[in-house]
Amino acid sequence: MSIENLSCNKSFGGWHKQYSHYSNTLNCAMRFAIYLPPQALSGAKVPALYWLSGLTCSDENFMQKAGAQRIAAELGMAIIAPDTSPRGDEVADNDGYDLGKGAGFYVNATQAPWNRHYQMYDYVLNELPALVESMFPVSDQRSIAGHSMGGHGALVLALRNPQRYRSVSAFSPISNPVNCPWGKKALSAYLGIDSAGWADYDASLLMRQASQCVPARVDQGEADDFLSAQLKPDTLEAAATFSGYPLELNRHEGYDHSYYFIASFIEQHLRFHARHLGQY
Amino acid sequence: MSIENLSCNKSFGGWHKQYSHYSNTLNCAMRFAIYLPPQALSGAKVPALYWLSGLTCSDENFMQKAGAQRIAAELGMAIIAPDTSPRGDEVADNDGYDLGKGAGFYVNATQAPWNRHYQMYDYVLNELPALVESMFPVSDQRSIAGHSMGGHGALVLALRNPQRYRSVSAFSPISNPVNCPWGKKALSAYLGIDSAGWADYDASLLMRQASQCVPARVDQGEADDFLSAQLKPDTLEAAATFSGYPLELNRHEGYDHSYYFIASFIEQHLRFHARHLGQY
Repeated sequence: MSIENLSCNKSFGGWHKQYSHYSNTLNCAMRFAIYLPPQALSGAKVPALYWLSGLTCSDENFMQKAGAQRIAAELGMAIIAPDTSPRGDEVADNDGYDLGKGAGFYVNATQAPWNRHYQMYDYVLNELPALVESMFPVSDQRSIAGHSMGGHGALVLALRNPQRYRSVSAFSPISNPVNCPWGKKALSAYLGIDSAGWADYDASLLMRQASQCVPARVDQGEADDFLSAQLKPDTLEAAATFSGYPLELNRHEGYDHSYYFIASFIEQHLRFHARHLGQY
Repeated sequence: MSIENLSCNKSFGGWHKQYSHYSNTLNCAMRFAIYLPPQALSGAKVPALYWLSGLTCSDENFMQKAGAQRIAAELGMAIIAPDTSPRGDEVADNDGYDLGKGAGFYVNATQAPWNRHYQMYDYVLNELPALVESMFPVSDQRSIAGHSMGGHGALVLALRNPQRYRSVSAFSPISNPVNCPWGKKALSAYLGIDSAGWADYDASLLMRQASQCVPARVDQGEADDFLSAQLKPDTLEAAATFSGYPLELNRHEGYDHSYYFIASFIEQHLRFHARHLGQY
């Protein structure tokens, strides 16, 4: 498993680093970023928060804009940010910003031409943590979080794999993709027009029938332009109520869909995960 | 004086906003960003930190990447980030990233074709604060800071106008532009090849002969690729020693020229300014 270091920046006493590696799951070269807190520099293993970004993003948006390193350095937590889709000239794409490159939706595509590379669910669940845990002083104590499409991905991965994650959080997640335009477009392309298989990738449907639970926190801005048409936090909240799922849903007056919102509350998310990762 | 609001994001209980206005100093439309902390929302005037960015930047880099709003919200301080040069199709430019648009160097150009628009020194010193203080609940208690080319600008503006600023700070400033490639290229273009007039825009030369002082703090990463060829903090330090100038110069092992460095120490800079602005 070859891996190439692309960049390295000292940050709050730890290191932000970008790497490229060939992904056997995605059949292409992939970039990811990792923040290693000062506690990891001695070689001691630290727990990990996996961050999944939203539409059009790469590994860089969160690392540059969220202001998370300050708190991760205090708490002794690594943060790993994968890209949002397979990349490269050979990878199928679409003119829209909401399908294809930058819009992998964290699913395993079953439909051509997407199924050759778009296997982001398996990549985030298995290949990336295996690589990270083999190369860095990062333990298998994992939490997962994300924004918008990445909030959807984080919730789906945690809901389907409660044994793999200690906690999950999301900012402004696409909570019920089978019922919104972004989700319908992506899921019909990647999984086919028969919507029966879509339920495996819908946080609200999964939460409704969840038995084994991962502590979950969601924050949603009330001035978010995508709130009612695309995100549907009410549906997620109703699902949690129905199944008794431990979901903490916080609504914030005046906040929008941007990283200014994420930066304002990322500290609370990291402290939430640290409690469940045993770091505090 | 017309001004147009371009964007508005709630951030740490305050507001990040971008505006466009026609600048009579620069003879073109200009964009700037302002962060108004929660304390300003009642209409009470808050003190202001003006932030000057580096080469290739706009008003957005600092606001998105530095993580300053969290601390400004706590301290009750507005932050104003102008662009780094005049902008627009009619504005003279150059193929290099280090001259022309995005590289105004905070000087008043005297040479054609630059002198028609490149008057960033006057814009930052006079027009922008007058506009800000007339439109927002922002007082005339001002501090100034910046990064790289913007660190040069902040130091020069404060050293030449000690009555206008309570404190000045810089990350990785171009400290002695008359003696480095970036500075020689820009100053010879904007001010002419006779270097006699360049001294008015050289922080080290100004600090050597300073009488009235503004408390100054500089932070410099020791792994900065531009350290010895372009930035020359030793020259600035020697000037401060020579004139007894109150300069606090901090060197940081392993940090580079990026916003990861700025984010790591911006809290210390804002608290430094707050002390001198009477906010703590």
